[in-house]
Amino acid sequence: MSDYAPVKTALIGLGPRAETLLASIFNIPEEMEVVAVCDLVDAKIEKILSLFDKRGRKRPTAFHDYREMLKMPSIDVVLVATSWNSHLGIACNVMRAGKYVAIEVGGASSIDELWQLVHASESTGVSCMMLENCCYGRNELMVLNMVRQGLFGELIHCACGYEHDLLRMAKEYTEGIERAIHNRYRNCDLYPTHQLGPTAKILRINRGNRFLSLTSTASKARGLTNKAEELGIKDENGNRLVFNMGDVITTVIKCAGGETITATHGVTLPRPYSRDSRVQGTKGIWMEDTNGIYIEGISPSITKIDIAGNPYTVHQWTPVEDFYEKYDHPLWKRYKKNENEAHGGMDSLMLRALAEAVRTHTAPPIDVYDCAAWMSLTCLSEESIALGSMPVSFPDFTNGKWINRGKERPSRWSLNEVFDI
Amino acid sequence: MSDYAPVKTALIGLGPRAETLLASIFNIPEEMEVVAVCDLVDAKIEKILSLFDKRGRKRPTAFHDYREMLKMPSIDVVLVATSWNSHLGIACNVMRAGKYVAIEVGGASSIDELWQLVHASESTGVSCMMLENCCYGRNELMVLNMVRQGLFGELIHCACGYEHDLLRMAKEYTEGIERAIHNRYRNCDLYPTHQLGPTAKILRINRGNRFLSLTSTASKARGLTNKAEELGIKDENGNRLVFNMGDVITTVIKCAGGETITATHGVTLPRPYSRDSRVQGTKGIWMEDTNGIYIEGISPSITKIDIAGNPYTVHQWTPVEDFYEKYDHPLWKRYKKNENEAHGGMDSLMLRALAEAVRTHTAPPIDVYDCAAWMSLTCLSEESIALGSMPVSFPDFTNGKWINRGKERPSRWSLNEVFDI
Repeated sequence: MSDYAPVKTALIGLGPRAETLLASIFNIPEEMEVVAVCDLVDAKIEKILSLFDKRGRKRPTAFHDYREMLKMPSIDVVLVATSWNSHLGIACNVMRAGKYVAIEVGGASSIDELWQLVHASESTGVSCMMLENCCYGRNELMVLNMVRQGLFGELIHCACGYEHDLLRMAKEYTEGIERAIHNRYRNCDLYPTHQLGPTAKILRINRGNRFLSLTSTASKARGLTNKAEELGIKDENGNRLVFNMGDVITTVIKCAGGETITATHGVTLPRPYSRDSRVQGTKGIWMEDTNGIYIEGISPSITKIDIAGNPYTVHQWTPVEDFYEKYDHPLWKRYKKNENEAHGGMDSLMLRALAEAVRTHTAPPIDVYDCAAWMSLTCLSEESIALGSMPVSFPDFTNGKWINRGKERPSRWSLNEVFDI
Repeated sequence: MSDYAPVKTALIGLGPRAETLLASIFNIPEEMEVVAVCDLVDAKIEKILSLFDKRGRKRPTAFHDYREMLKMPSIDVVLVATSWNSHLGIACNVMRAGKYVAIEVGGASSIDELWQLVHASESTGVSCMMLENCCYGRNELMVLNMVRQGLFGELIHCACGYEHDLLRMAKEYTEGIERAIHNRYRNCDLYPTHQLGPTAKILRINRGNRFLSLTSTASKARGLTNKAEELGIKDENGNRLVFNMGDVITTVIKCAGGETITATHGVTLPRPYSRDSRVQGTKGIWMEDTNGIYIEGISPSITKIDIAGNPYTVHQWTPVEDFYEKYDHPLWKRYKKNENEAHGGMDSLMLRALAEAVRTHTAPPIDVYDCAAWMSLTCLSEESIALGSMPVSFPDFTNGKWINRGKERPSRWSLNEVFDI
C-alpha cells in the first residue's frame, strides 16, 4: 500500500483516447481516481460510464459543461482529451480554476494560443503537462539513460517522426473526425510530438537548450485524395474531395546547442508504422528503423577486402534488446520490468509522473514550456511551407529561462525527474 | 565472343579508385581495354602498371601530361579519377579533344563549373558520364524496375545519403588527402551522388522531372576536430585543428513533379554505413535501413488489440530479398545472376554501359545533365547553409529540354536504356 491517497482526476473529451487513458488509470488505482467526466455528447458519457461498471469501479460524476465540473473542489487534476482546436483554451481555464491540467498530444494552430497557455500557467502557478506517452517508451527511456551516462558522447543529430497509414481518414472526413478535417485544410507537420517529445527530452530542450529555427517542405498530396476518389466521396459541392496535406512533410530543426533534428510527418501513404527515432552523438547512434544501437568500442566491426585487394572496415549494429539488461531506465526497471509493454505500459508511467507532480505541487516532467515548444512545430512548419520552405524561428517561450533551467540536478531520483537523470 | 572490339580506354588519376575501376575492367576484357594511363606521380604510375603485369595484361602507355595523352588517336574514352577540384576542367578538355569522358563521383564547387561542363558537351557532341556505380546496385535497380512496373504507385518521397565513418580523415588531412581538406574548409553535402544518383534515376530527373529547390542545414562539427585533438594533430600555426564540416548535413529537395527528397551527409561520426535509401509512392515503400519493402496488397498486415480492447492494424515489412526472383532488373538478371555482388559487381555493369555508349556513339545512361544536376547539390547546399538554411533554386542545366527528354521510350532494351525501362 502507498502512503498517499490517489489523485482526484477529471476527464474531459470522452473519445477513444479517453478510453485508453482510463484503462491505464484503472491499472494504477493507488495513483489516480477518476471522480468526474465531461463531454457534450451523451453517448460518449454513457460509454465511458459503462467502462467503470465493467471494472466494478465507482461511477464518476458526469458533466456536459466543463466549467460546471471545475467547480467541484475535490478535483486535483483535469485530463483534457478534446479536439485540437479546443483543448488549449480549456487547459487555460482549468489552470485559472487553480487545478493542474494535462492535455492530450497535438499541434498548435498559432503561436498566440501557446503564449496564452504559458501565461495561464505563469499567472496561476499551476502547470500544464502534455500526455506524451512516447516519452515513456522503453527504448526512448533507455537511450536517454545511456545518453546521460555518456555512451553516445556529445549529441549531434536526431530524427523523429510520425509515419502511419491513416488512409481511413478519407472516410473519417465524412464523419466529421477532426484529424481528417485538419488533413483536408492544412499543410504542415500536424502531429509532431510522439517522437519530438522524447527527442526534446534527450536534447534537454528548455533546460539548457532550445529549438532555434526550422525549415519545412511538403511533398505533393495524393494519398487521401486518391482514397476519397476510390471510395466515391465528394466534397460539399459535389466536386472532387481534395486534401491539402502533403503526403510527407519533412522539417529540419536547428537547436541552440548546434544539434539538428529531422522531423517527418506522413499519415496518408500505405506503410509500416515508424516514429523514425534516431539519436546520434560523437560516440554512438540509435536508429529505430534498424532496431540497432552502435556504440564505439562496444559494437563490433569486421574487416573486408575490396575488389582491388584493399581492406576496409564494416561497422555493425548491436540489437537494441542487447542493452536492456544493463541500461534500462531506472523508472522502467522499477515499474515495468515484469509487465507487458502494451500501449498502456507507457501511459501508466506517464500518469504516475503526473500524479506525483499534482500530489507534491511540483512541475510535471513535461511542463507548459515543453507543451509550447513541441506544439509550435505544427504552426511553424505550416508557415515555412507556405513561404516555400523559408527558415522560421521558434519563439523562446521561457523568455530566457531555458539557459538556467534544469541546471540544478535532482539530488534523488523521482518520477518527475525521470528525464533529468 | 562478342561481335565488337573492346573500347580503347585511358585512365587519368591513378589513386585507389583507379585501382578498383581497373580490377572491374579486367573482368570485362571484351568491353574495355586500357591503352593509356596518366598521373603526375611516378609511384602511382608504377603501381598501376604492376597491376597489369600481375594479371598478365599488356602494359598501357603511361603519361604525366594528360594533354599529351589525348593526342593518341586510338583512345575512345577517358576515365577521369583525379581530384574534385580538377576533374571537371579535365573532362571539358577531353570532350574538346573529341573523346567520350567519364568522371568519378564528387560534388561541384560552383554552378559555373557545371555550366562549363554542359557547354563543352553540347558544343562538341560527345558526352560526359558520371561513374556512379551505386546506380547499378542490385536493390536500386530492382526498385527502379518495380517502380516502372507500377508497384510503388505514383512516387511521392525519397531519401538518400552517405553516412560512413571516415574519421580517419583527421590523419589523412596531414597527408594532404583531398577529401580531408574539403572537410576542413567547407560545410555542405560534400559527397552527394552515391544515393542521389539512383534516386534521380528512379524519379526521372532531367527526363520529365527536375530538381527545383533545396534547403540545407548543418549540425555542429565535432567528429574530426575531436579526433585531431585525440591524435595530437595541430593546424599550420600550431593551433587546434578545426574542421568546418557539420557532422550531419540534412538537405531537403523539392522536385518539379512535387516529390521531395531528403539527402543526408555524415562522414565524421562513428556508425554503420548507410546510403539511407528510401523510395515511397502511393502504393509502396522501400527503406534500406529496414531492409524492407512494403507493397500494399502484397506485404502482410496483422490485427492487434489495444489496452481498451479496440483493434488496430499493424503493417509489416517484407524482406527485400523476397522480391529478387520476380523483380530483379533485366540488366542484373542478364549479367549478374551468377556473380558475387562485390563492389566490382556494380562497377562492371556501369562500365559495360559506358562502353556501349562509346561504341554506338550514343548518350550514356548517366549523361552530362545528370552530372550537372547531381553535383550541384554540393555547392547549393553550401549556399543554403551559409544563408541560414534559406531555400535556393537549382539551375535548369537542360534549358527546358527536361520536359520532353526521355519521352520516347526505347523500343528495345539495351545497356544505355537501363533506367528507361
